Amino acid sequence: MSTASPLVNDRFLRALLRQPVDYTPLWIMRQAGRYLPEYRATRSKAGDFMSLCRSAELACEVTLQPLERFDLDAAILFSDILTVPDAMGLGLSFAAGEGPVFAHPLRSRAAIEKLPIIDPNLELGYVMNAVRTIRHALQGRVPLIGFSGSPWTLATYMVEGGSTKEFAHIKGLMYSDPSSAHLLLDKLSRAVTDYLNAQVQSGAQALMIFDTWGGVLSPDKYREFSLRYMAQIVDGLIREHDGRRVPVIVFTKGGGAWAQDIAAIGADAMGVDWTSDLTAVRQQVGHLVALQGNLDPSVLYAPEPVIEQEVARVLAAFGHGNGHVFNLGHGIHQHVDPDRVRYLVDAVHRLSRPYHAAHS
Amino acid sequence: MSTASPLVNDRFLRALLRQPVDYTPLWIMRQAGRYLPEYRATRSKAGDFMSLCRSAELACEVTLQPLERFDLDAAILFSDILTVPDAMGLGLSFAAGEGPVFAHPLRSRAAIEKLPIIDPNLELGYVMNAVRTIRHALQGRVPLIGFSGSPWTLATYMVEGGSTKEFAHIKGLMYSDPSSAHLLLDKLSRAVTDYLNAQVQSGAQALMIFDTWGGVLSPDKYREFSLRYMAQIVDGLIREHDGRRVPVIVFTKGGGAWAQDIAAIGADAMGVDWTSDLTAVRQQVGHLVALQGNLDPSVLYAPEPVIEQEVARVLAAFGHGNGHVFNLGHGIHQHVDPDRVRYLVDAVHRLSRPYHAAHS
Repeated sequence: MSTASPLVNDRFLRALLRQPVDYTPLWIMRQAGRYLPEYRATRSKAGDFMSLCRSAELACEVTLQPLERFDLDAAILFSDILTVPDAMGLGLSFAAGEGPVFAHPLRSRAAIEKLPIIDPNLELGYVMNAVRTIRHALQGRVPLIGFSGSPWTLATYMVEGGSTKEFAHIKGLMYSDPSSAHLLLDKLSRAVTDYLNAQVQSGAQALMIFDTWGGVLSPDKYREFSLRYMAQIVDGLIREHDGRRVPVIVFTKGGGAWAQDIAAIGADAMGVDWTSDLTAVRQQVGHLVALQGNLDPSVLYAPEPVIEQEVARVLAAFGHGNGHVFNLGHGIHQHVDPDRVRYLVDAVHRLSRPYHAAHS
Repeated sequence: MSTASPLVNDRFLRALLRQPVDYTPLWIMRQAGRYLPEYRATRSKAGDFMSLCRSAELACEVTLQPLERFDLDAAILFSDILTVPDAMGLGLSFAAGEGPVFAHPLRSRAAIEKLPIIDPNLELGYVMNAVRTIRHALQGRVPLIGFSGSPWTLATYMVEGGSTKEFAHIKGLMYSDPSSAHLLLDKLSRAVTDYLNAQVQSGAQALMIFDTWGGVLSPDKYREFSLRYMAQIVDGLIREHDGRRVPVIVFTKGGGAWAQDIAAIGADAMGVDWTSDLTAVRQQVGHLVALQGNLDPSVLYAPEPVIEQEVARVLAAFGHGNGHVFNLGHGIHQHVDPDRVRYLVDAVHRLSRPYHAAHS
């Protein structure tokens, strides 16, 4: 990727590295999603969800859709957190209205041992095509974020076979046969490292690890079965590419209480959901990492004055200084009115300027 | 209730009041539940779930079932957290395999204004009958816990009409029309206070407020829309009856980060789920409250040595001294083998004695 256009708006990358910006950058988790009518149109054209992910052209189309509407400061690869286990042969599909389903859940040590080592440029070549296509189409407008699910999060879906409330199978494995659980998590860590590095080599300019289900663990099990493997991945990532630092964000939903541990694994930034107080988290992590978050996605159901007030609250909670990327604390809900999103984006940019004015 | 038998085992009440005990008492959330074959037999005899709750004889039967099997230190009224909104006319039912469903969800200010004031001895007379029947049948073996859902938790189901992942309607109300949300929560607080006091007058010897969904709020919204109303209830409860203190436990699932705020509302004890470190929570709350918890329910899928080790970990995390009631951090899962529960109960009693030996 020596042909990259220079970045027009690099506020997102600068904020992740705690460098000065003129206003707080933002993007929105699941910003290319069902709340946008143009997304729903492309999605129905593609057929099922995985066909949309597998087509570089369509994945690029939906990645750019929210950028056409809103003044967002980053694009994120349109894909799924579960592409790696799918490439390992578990057979990912999405039942209508349900979550993800694996045709072949992992239920034995033998199945874990047999999991193949994948080459992300082969089995996940469609993702790399999408990254290259999107990066080219962006023409340097904003940076492109690559991502993966965390090993623990991938393992929950692989062992349960889909969504779960109780995590009976994966926790049963963790408590009854921890060595098999560690074997699985280690294999996944290696695969995710290779996958994320391939995304960087294909053009991703920042990386995010989504640990959607780390928050269902007790503190000691979180450190042993989730955080440890995210640390292993961060250690193995390409951190500079094309002469520029590639920042890494780790995000454990429900992990606010473990901020100090998360901040210590060597990532550049951590995501913070809306159940944590951003002031407290910032105090705990000091200057170790930038913070990304932390508006409750449900604020987007409120009228404009309430959105304004809640944006102001989050900005004030982070306070003055560098190192804040504004975001929701979770993916945007499908029933949100896109006009509220426009209001949100403009409010963040407008209201954040005073927090940066005195800093250079 | 002047006819009450003297309590044979009052360790649970003593622990809640941070008084000395010889071993750590325990009970298990949802201990009368689907993991017990005898419960499933009674349930199928009753027909639907609410018929089981409405029959004092059957509710008593299932309440006592786990006590026949295991050496538990408390009984809990068999009922549902949503009886109050059902009595207000919302029409509660349970679809097979689904969660609770309200036939008439609340979707307007007018509907909130029209909610009737209920007399718990009339509209919820079946609950009081069950409390009296169970208390009589217990003959003082262990104390009987009465309970209700918290106002915020009741409101989520009432406004959503059932279970939800996104809380779009209730949070939409909270952010868009906070005065209507407060009107609803205030009405519910008054109704829950009357309901819990009627349970005490019918024979409940301790009370628990289940705030199942307080943890989906941001810290400031939690204090304003959930904790405030639990404080209002605690202020209005009968705290002594038949010459004995009636302890109150508040439990916000996912509320570990707010332990200091929760401990300050005047309850005797707080529940702690497994995502919190019991040592840290105890340090934060000091001597304000006893703590109840905090084993991950999934530990019961593990073999006995792992259960033993995890019990030891929780006991060590609380440490020496008074004020610990052992429990799971959430209701027991339906697929747990009852023999593992027996092992758990005995392990807690056996392993906890050294933590109390030096204290008198």
